[in-house]
Amino acid sequence: MTKNSYAIEPIGVIRSELTDLADAPLQGDEGGYEAWLELTPQVAQGLAGIKAGDHLIVLTWLHRAQRDVLQVHPRGRLEAPLRGVFSTRSQDRPNPIGLHQVSVLEVAGQRLRVTPLEAIDGTPIVDIKPVLSAKPSER
Amino acid sequence: MTKNSYAIEPIGVIRSELTDLADAPLQGDEGGYEAWLELTPQVAQGLAGIKAGDHLIVLTWLHRAQRDVLQVHPRGRLEAPLRGVFSTRSQDRPNPIGLHQVSVLEVAGQRLRVTPLEAIDGTPIVDIKPVLSAKPSER
Repeated sequence: MTKNSYAIEPIGVIRSELTDLADAPLQGDEGGYEAWLELTPQVAQGLAGIKAGDHLIVLTWLHRAQRDVLQVHPRGRLEAPLRGVFSTRSQDRPNPIGLHQVSVLEVAGQRLRVTPLEAIDGTPIVDIKPVLSAKPSER
Repeated sequence: MTKNSYAIEPIGVIRSELTDLADAPLQGDEGGYEAWLELTPQVAQGLAGIKAGDHLIVLTWLHRAQRDVLQVHPRGRLEAPLRGVFSTRSQDRPNPIGLHQVSVLEVAGQRLRVTPLEAIDGTPIVDIKPVLSAKPSER
């Protein structure tokens, strides 16, 4: 049976000079910022093995998103026809989880400096995963 | 302020012949199965624009995972040194969100037939996103 809901508990928070949603690029590779991932002490052990130069996928909870939106004009272009949110990267969607591919610049205890990141300061982090190499034998 | 928790509400469920975790490959491209994504009627509008041939990222809630695990032996190899879960794709982690890149084979109302998928039958789906093309101008 599927439960009706599961509790996501943030493992940390994004610290960035980017504080205003209006200034945020739509995707990290469209002008993302350097940012710090500040993990909580409770999960710090989970960072073991991460080093500068690694490529990671950061999962965030886009806490400013609207969760009751199912269709949007892609990239906010009002002249474009409405599309289902699951065929877009709109932050407005039932479960507003953001995916951000970043490179690690520096590891400082339970903080990671990464780039590029388009999420604003204060965005909760919910998971971090490595980008998989194309070859299963190298995973 | 970051809240202590957010409620994820599944938008659907995976229907697959794969019913036993012990038979599941570690990643979809290591022998994943065809599967159906069954969305709930409440979010069906969100699928508008998705068609056969599309490449999607399916986000799941790995409901059988252990959430109190912070270090693992990568890929279950006991001879390998322990690593932090955030540098692995272990399903055991504080917020067990699975990422699965799939191709759409068929769209049938609020159901999508996709391949390859390594998640077991009954796994809750929490989000669906398009794979971004490399060129921002084509998004």
